Amino acid sequence: AQELGKSADTKVTVEKKWFETLSLRGYMQVRYNRLLETNPDLGCEQCDKSWGDNNGLFIRRGRLVFSGNVHERIYIYVQPDFASSASTTSNNFLQIRDAYFDLAFDSKKEYRLRVGQSKVPYGFENMQSSQNRLTLDRNDALNSAVVNERDLGLFFYWAPKEKRDLFAKLVKDGLKGSGDYGVFGFGIYNGQTANRTEANDSQHVIARVSYPFEFKNGQIFEAGIQGYTGKYVLPSVTSTVIVNSDKEYLDERVAASFVLYPQPFGLQAEYNIGTGPEFNKLNNTIEQKSLHGGYIQAFYNLKFEEQIVLPFVKYQIYRGGKKHELDARSYEVNDLEIGIEYQPFKNFEVVADYTISKRRYEDAVKLNNLQEGNLLRLQLQVNF
Amino acid sequence: AQELGKSADTKVTVEKKWFETLSLRGYMQVRYNRLLETNPDLGCEQCDKSWGDNNGLFIRRGRLVFSGNVHERIYIYVQPDFASSASTTSNNFLQIRDAYFDLAFDSKKEYRLRVGQSKVPYGFENMQSSQNRLTLDRNDALNSAVVNERDLGLFFYWAPKEKRDLFAKLVKDGLKGSGDYGVFGFGIYNGQTANRTEANDSQHVIARVSYPFEFKNGQIFEAGIQGYTGKYVLPSVTSTVIVNSDKEYLDERVAASFVLYPQPFGLQAEYNIGTGPEFNKLNNTIEQKSLHGGYIQAFYNLKFEEQIVLPFVKYQIYRGGKKHELDARSYEVNDLEIGIEYQPFKNFEVVADYTISKRRYEDAVKLNNLQEGNLLRLQLQVNF
Amino acid sequence: AQELGKSADTKVTVEKKWFETLSLRGYMQVRYNRLLETNPDLGCEQCDKSWGDNNGLFIRRGRLVFSGNVHERIYIYVQPDFASSASTTSNNFLQIRDAYFDLAFDSKKEYRLRVGQSKVPYGFENMQSSQNRLTLDRNDALNSAVVNERDLGLFFYWAPKEKRDLFAKLVKDGLKGSGDYGVFGFGIYNGQTANRTEANDSQHVIARVSYPFEFKNGQIFEAGIQGYTGKYVLPSVTSTVIVNSDKEYLDERVAASFVLYPQPFGLQAEYNIGTGPEFNKLNNTIEQKSLHGGYIQAFYNLKFEEQIVLPFVKYQIYRGGKKHELDARSYEVNDLEIGIEYQPFKNFEVVADYTISKRRYEDAVKLNNLQEGNLLRLQLQVNF
Repeated sequence: AQELGKSADTKVTVEKKWFETLSLRGYMQVRYNRLLETNPDLGCEQCDKSWGDNNGLFIRRGRLVFSGNVHERIYIYVQPDFASSASTTSNNFLQIRDAYFDLAFDSKKEYRLRVGQSKVPYGFENMQSSQNRLTLDRNDALNSAVVNERDLGLFFYWAPKEKRDLFAKLVKDGLKGSGDYGVFGFGIYNGQTANRTEANDSQHVIARVSYPFEFKNGQIFEAGIQGYTGKYVLPSVTSTVIVNSDKEYLDERVAASFVLYPQPFGLQAEYNIGTGPEFNKLNNTIEQKSLHGGYIQAFYNLKFEEQIVLPFVKYQIYRGGKKHELDARSYEVNDLEIGIEYQPFKNFEVVADYTISKRRYEDAVKLNNLQEGNLLRLQLQVNF
Repeated sequence: AQELGKSADTKVTVEKKWFETLSLRGYMQVRYNRLLETNPDLGCEQCDKSWGDNNGLFIRRGRLVFSGNVHERIYIYVQPDFASSASTTSNNFLQIRDAYFDLAFDSKKEYRLRVGQSKVPYGFENMQSSQNRLTLDRNDALNSAVVNERDLGLFFYWAPKEKRDLFAKLVKDGLKGSGDYGVFGFGIYNGQTANRTEANDSQHVIARVSYPFEFKNGQIFEAGIQGYTGKYVLPSVTSTVIVNSDKEYLDERVAASFVLYPQPFGLQAEYNIGTGPEFNKLNNTIEQKSLHGGYIQAFYNLKFEEQIVLPFVKYQIYRGGKKHELDARSYEVNDLEIGIEYQPFKNFEVVADYTISKRRYEDAVKLNNLQEGNLLRLQLQVNF
Repeated sequence: AQELGKSADTKVTVEKKWFETLSLRGYMQVRYNRLLETNPDLGCEQCDKSWGDNNGLFIRRGRLVFSGNVHERIYIYVQPDFASSASTTSNNFLQIRDAYFDLAFDSKKEYRLRVGQSKVPYGFENMQSSQNRLTLDRNDALNSAVVNERDLGLFFYWAPKEKRDLFAKLVKDGLKGSGDYGVFGFGIYNGQTANRTEANDSQHVIARVSYPFEFKNGQIFEAGIQGYTGKYVLPSVTSTVIVNSDKEYLDERVAASFVLYPQPFGLQAEYNIGTGPEFNKLNNTIEQKSLHGGYIQAFYNLKFEEQIVLPFVKYQIYRGGKKHELDARSYEVNDLEIGIEYQPFKNFEVVADYTISKRRYEDAVKLNNLQEGNLLRLQLQVNF
């Protein structure tokens, strides 16, 4: 705009203003999980701390995203969450989810190195933003690999230009895409997950391939495979439990992902197997054990002018330990969710998710704990 | 600006830039409370943690406000405070005060639902921003209903367009208005107050009516009435104190508010009565007891071109428990404040507030504690 | 831009948009300290918590700076760090580093009062931003005077217009300047350092003179002297240690600083002497003791078109207590650093710093603790 009135051949170097380089956006989710609740003792630590007894309205996520292409080779992304707890009683502090920069090796940004705290490229649903996900929480099976989905590391991503454009389009067009984590990804990271202090001398290593196929009829299908290995140090163990002397266990998984993008019918399935620490109540010991689980989700994308309605159904299972929780808590999960997302306009969404849940979760404090129950979960989300 | 040079009848859809939709503003208050202090043992936990012994300069509030009409029906408001403590020794973390969105039901936004953490509409002074208040702290009587003034809930507000404009004008013109919390407000909220985890299964319920009358001579008078009820769970109790088995007490109040806006003479008075938990030192028990108290404040609005001077005097009393404090601490408050606010220009303010205070505040640790004293309180405030 | 098409003599008062008044910028540093490490027990609490055993990748600093001239007399500066810990296990919370405003007494802003939390003007390297410093951490000797370099106070600065322009130019031109802390500075501050609660009734007092000389050949040389005095209350003392009954000690230092700015050869040296608390292992007592130390650094500024390379060497010593650490830990430091900073373009920097370190640091828990070792330290920094 500064160049108006000048002849076209005058050379003017206009330095970009800060607000043209950096931008701010965000979203917030407010929930209530107590309607039609049949069992107030049924909880899910990994999902949402406001299930069950003595809970009410809850801000599940509040995000501010500062990002921008600050140089033709450098992209920065800093995302604080404003619904993080600094202790069990004091909530809603600002804590980082993402804080990374991408260093591109070529002008088309097909080859990039991501440095800092960012998502560990393990699974499709883990990569997909909670802003776009249909169900209120991620599946136990793959999300228990990397709680909060992130870690501090160096990640290399490669994708050809046309696939990068496709990854962007799958989000922009409301097709519930994952964003661009490359067709090929490879990384090393601390392994104790986001915002936790590194606890050993070894790094986790991960690799992923995920390829979106475009068919002539316009349908898009993505298939991916990913795996990681590393050594994990347990963060919280009851004092009476028998545990490896350094609390260190092998943490190794491989997963397959399949996605049919919703034009209008969508289908999504993932499964993973692996090994990790798990509490055994029979001998009060945290053992190295195998684990497995996954989910399948079907959904439908209905548009009425500006309004969008997405009914969905999801079934998930998980059998194994959860390394991030007390005593690498032992889990047996069978959950069925039936729900609907309604977007009256792009800045606002309502989700109703009826959950039929059967969960055994046991540690040294809760030795025999099988919980079954149903609940209607409601979420209001604002996007800005 | 992008349309310059095009003919007027060319239709151009210009998507708004992020910085045209969202905006950032804020303020900061730096205080010193030790001048002319006659009693270093006199404190006020609810007011300002830097009264008395071993205190010095103090950042009382630091606020960044991210807000905007992100859609014709959606307004978002995210306000972190940057002077919040994560523990008794580690200060100046960023913690949310407000994080809400307004969903308007009509194009004039006369009917709105506010979702998230926001101010509980109880009292005029509680609604008025600290950026605009004359005295350094809010009155004990009404503020002890909702510490930090906020909670997580759903609030419905209604006000006709002309009253909405008036509420906005009362702030913009420096008349120390409260902002727009509707002529009528109704809400449900968790009840444990801002940033605290919900602790029982019941919600608080509140209703409020506040109407500003405009007289022919230009004077504006506002009268309001408000009341709430709910069950509150005590957050901190000395182990030896006798308390209800679930620490739950009835928490119920009603208040009346009167404001004559300062053109140039202003007058403000509020009073509330109710019931809540209160420590009884005679039997070492936290009992359900009645409470009452309020304040009256007179002030004058002097303008010398850009400069503004506002002398004020305020008298307040309170007799009852404070549910948020240790053992629902028992209070008897009689305070007189005489002060002046000086704004040399709109971005900067100085307040001097001479406080003559008589406070009995007692819990299981401080059984007999009547403190009397005077102090001169100083505040520098920057608005940006 | 709004005035286009209007005749030049039409008077239009255009109120500035928020984004023209306020701006956002920042930087982030990601480190790895474990390459070529010869002694995993060698640590440096004041420098970087990721030295040695059980450490990996680490975000050392992440900064967002909100600043602006919000009025012709008022400048605000709010800088949260997004790599702050709220406890030993929970990292990456947002916590304030700077939160201040400058109130100018004249239109040229030669006389300013800085109010809030800001850098205490003690030493050149302490004033210089970590965004610009060559070595990965500040020297122990002067930085142990004010950990995190900041405190809550009132600081008066004076510098003539041409020196203010020079201070700005020394940063903008990549000459590793300190920024503008005046030719003369004077201040009072709480004395417990940034983000810590004041712990006694007395303030620290500081004064500083620093003058940059410009020579005819273009070389610029700056010399400074500074000193402070106050009483400091120890924040953490082992229960068995003998300590002053109020944990209060005299805290008093004076320092000299010399800088030859790198055109292309740079030289920097500082030294300080003083007194403060220090742990004495012979009698298990924290005593009032003298302290001294400083550093000398030589460096070279090489430019290849857009690229910049800066090799450097630094030697430092320190002998004394560190008041901020457990038991006012006793220190004997001898460190040599040889390194290089490489900026391929202005938004990105790589530093390699080979450190040859010999450190004795002892408190009541570690009574005999001399650690020697070498390590290669790597840092990637992004500026935005």
